[in-house]
Amino acid sequence: MREERLIRTVRCRNVHQPGILGGLLTVVGAEGADIGEIRLIKEGLRTMVRDITIYCTDEEQLARVLTALEAYPDTIVEAVRDEVLELHQDGKIATRSRYPVESLYTLRRVYTPGVASVCRAIAADGALARQYTSIHRQVAIITDGTAILGLGDIGAVAGMPVMEGKAMLLETLVDLSGVPILLDTTDVDEIVATIEHIAPTFGAIQLEDISAPRCFEIEQRLEKSLDIPIMHDDQHGTAVVTLAALTNACKTACRDFEDAVVGQIGLGAAGYSIGKMLMRITGGPVLGADLSEEASAAFESIGGKRATLEEIMGTCDVVIATTGVPGLIAPEMIREGQIIMALSNPNPEIEPELALEHGAAFAADGKLVNNLLGFPGIFRGVLEAHAPKITPEMYIAAAQAIAEQATEGDLVPNPLEREVHLEVARAVARTAVEQGLARAEYIPILGE
Amino acid sequence: MREERLIRTVRCRNVHQPGILGGLLTVVGAEGADIGEIRLIKEGLRTMVRDITIYCTDEEQLARVLTALEAYPDTIVEAVRDEVLELHQDGKIATRSRYPVESLYTLRRVYTPGVASVCRAIAADGALARQYTSIHRQVAIITDGTAILGLGDIGAVAGMPVMEGKAMLLETLVDLSGVPILLDTTDVDEIVATIEHIAPTFGAIQLEDISAPRCFEIEQRLEKSLDIPIMHDDQHGTAVVTLAALTNACKTACRDFEDAVVGQIGLGAAGYSIGKMLMRITGGPVLGADLSEEASAAFESIGGKRATLEEIMGTCDVVIATTGVPGLIAPEMIREGQIIMALSNPNPEIEPELALEHGAAFAADGKLVNNLLGFPGIFRGVLEAHAPKITPEMYIAAAQAIAEQATEGDLVPNPLEREVHLEVARAVARTAVEQGLARAEYIPILGE
Repeated sequence: MREERLIRTVRCRNVHQPGILGGLLTVVGAEGADIGEIRLIKEGLRTMVRDITIYCTDEEQLARVLTALEAYPDTIVEAVRDEVLELHQDGKIATRSRYPVESLYTLRRVYTPGVASVCRAIAADGALARQYTSIHRQVAIITDGTAILGLGDIGAVAGMPVMEGKAMLLETLVDLSGVPILLDTTDVDEIVATIEHIAPTFGAIQLEDISAPRCFEIEQRLEKSLDIPIMHDDQHGTAVVTLAALTNACKTACRDFEDAVVGQIGLGAAGYSIGKMLMRITGGPVLGADLSEEASAAFESIGGKRATLEEIMGTCDVVIATTGVPGLIAPEMIREGQIIMALSNPNPEIEPELALEHGAAFAADGKLVNNLLGFPGIFRGVLEAHAPKITPEMYIAAAQAIAEQATEGDLVPNPLEREVHLEVARAVARTAVEQGLARAEYIPILGE
Repeated sequence: MREERLIRTVRCRNVHQPGILGGLLTVVGAEGADIGEIRLIKEGLRTMVRDITIYCTDEEQLARVLTALEAYPDTIVEAVRDEVLELHQDGKIATRSRYPVESLYTLRRVYTPGVASVCRAIAADGALARQYTSIHRQVAIITDGTAILGLGDIGAVAGMPVMEGKAMLLETLVDLSGVPILLDTTDVDEIVATIEHIAPTFGAIQLEDISAPRCFEIEQRLEKSLDIPIMHDDQHGTAVVTLAALTNACKTACRDFEDAVVGQIGLGAAGYSIGKMLMRITGGPVLGADLSEEASAAFESIGGKRATLEEIMGTCDVVIATTGVPGLIAPEMIREGQIIMALSNPNPEIEPELALEHGAAFAADGKLVNNLLGFPGIFRGVLEAHAPKITPEMYIAAAQAIAEQATEGDLVPNPLEREVHLEVARAVARTAVEQGLARAEYIPILGE
């Protein structure tokens, strides 16, 4: 079973002599640790200094690796650094001016007195705010801290590194401004009211890591009261990327999932939304299993069919699991020819290799089904289109765009390629046009 | 009387021949318009193209200037551009990553799975949020749009260009991240609740362009309920810069204002706060005049003395006016030797030249008393010190630091010099240490 791992950068100084590096790495491997990047820091006549990134399962294994390295002949461990923490020093994002304010000339135009004319123009015609402010490029990334990653209810402030990470990706991949908002309340009414009161600041709202079932009500109420796109990423982002991966998984397994019997294990935010999207596509019910009566009832209310874990494993052609319970699916439950997507991170319900050994036609875990492939392009698309909401059709179009861009044999494309996200944005914007929510001639990205 | 002006950039193509530019500018001047920057765009064998920035009082004057330019021999007006609007195209700020996310190596550290270790560390020890997130460098710039510049209640969205301008300055001058927040409500209870609910996101809160008297209650309630610095810029920022300017004005006029009789005309957000700060320094009452009974009563409740405009002009050594009423002070009201600060922007209560002609020992308007000199350094100072609030002593220290940095003969220093703001920050941080709110050894800026 794979586990979440420690990442440490170990700086080693050793005698400049062929074979030493190989020996060092062998020592690390012998302790069961993995090796990542190796960077040459200094090449001297007599000594070499290198930074070696080591992945360990726990502090104990790390200690063993360091002891072994220090015991290696002619080698000194100079430092052990936590580069993850280093990258978080002072935070990962900042508000920046889009051009420098270095002269009185510019100051008088971006600030008083010049700015008054822009304020007056917007006061006279509110639509000009889209053109002359940052509002329509700002996406609020809002959390109450109740479901941060797989860590649970650790509070909004502890979730800030995730929100900042999302903001970094919005900039890096689609040139939008993510604005983290950390809430001090977990009360649904207070959350809805607070978001409504700050909504004029943003072009769109991303709800993030808010626990189920509160997340459903919050999203639905905001969709009703606000005229800008709202997206709970843990539901729809995950569903979009899962659908994309499933599309390619079925292709690989030579299976048409539109007539497949589909089972969804785990009906939290992600599972509920995946099931809902798949029912929209197949037209038939999806079998759903969850220990919570409330979650099961909610899934039934949208057309799902309540089932047990055993029933799903025993009858479904396609099984998706989003339970957060590592190893939940025993290998002997796997049926010949099944497609298994065990998506819980960092530890899946069943390791793909194990599922394949036991007869699965295709198996994948959540490592590649990262919702990072969804939200940037979806937001860029709706904001470019100036669509007031994100429709189910847009989510499906986004999933198709992601699926189509995967290289033959891969489930999904490389998430760090900007063009992948812009293509998702175009698919979403085109759908907005088809649905009469936008006009193509006003959407710059469709002309590119 | 000076008025707020139109700024336009006029592109002129004319025959390449000595004397033409002088002729063109003479034509502009003859219509009473001012000329700003002139940029050479293209120098051809036969023709020259230049961008000429022209300041006009209104559209009519602009039209006359353009007609005159077009009538000038061998000249074509190719374009008239509004560079203020151009600089606002797509907004002035953006959220940026503090370093690039270009590789899977970085992605895995700033996002899942690596980020989880940082979230867990903060969940275990909340104080680490200061070190590993952007929170302590983020200043919320919050408005409800009720008192945007001198434009009044034009709504929060129309005020966004001002909030973005403030954010640009926070970055440019003191490396902080300003985060505009536009409120959809003007209800005091709703504003307070909303700000409380989003407060965990920020290191400090700047209230901006919120009308009096609501601004007083909002600030006071937030100061009580939150443990981070709150500052209503229109009150304290203006008071700080006014005190700095007044200090230097008194020096120039060879007057010690600590034993002067001071009058404050206009008791809105700025006037109330200026009067309050001056009473703290002089120990005696300040005379205050306002047409509003509520504002006058509030001023009395903090030790001010109610007076009429005529009483203030007839008895005070130092007169400060913040009424927003151009020309309110008639020249014949001026007494010999008075110090007059007529601060309303863009049009003062009396033009300084006029006041001087009628016997004032010193006179200034609000053009240079720009609160841009105050808020950046004040926020940087309290955030570096990690002080939970901004005290009156810190505001006074900031004013002194600003006053001391003015060049001999000037009221205030150049607001675009970063060192000026860092010195203000140091003064504020040192005061926090003196007041037992911070420890000097933890304040990096004091060691620089």
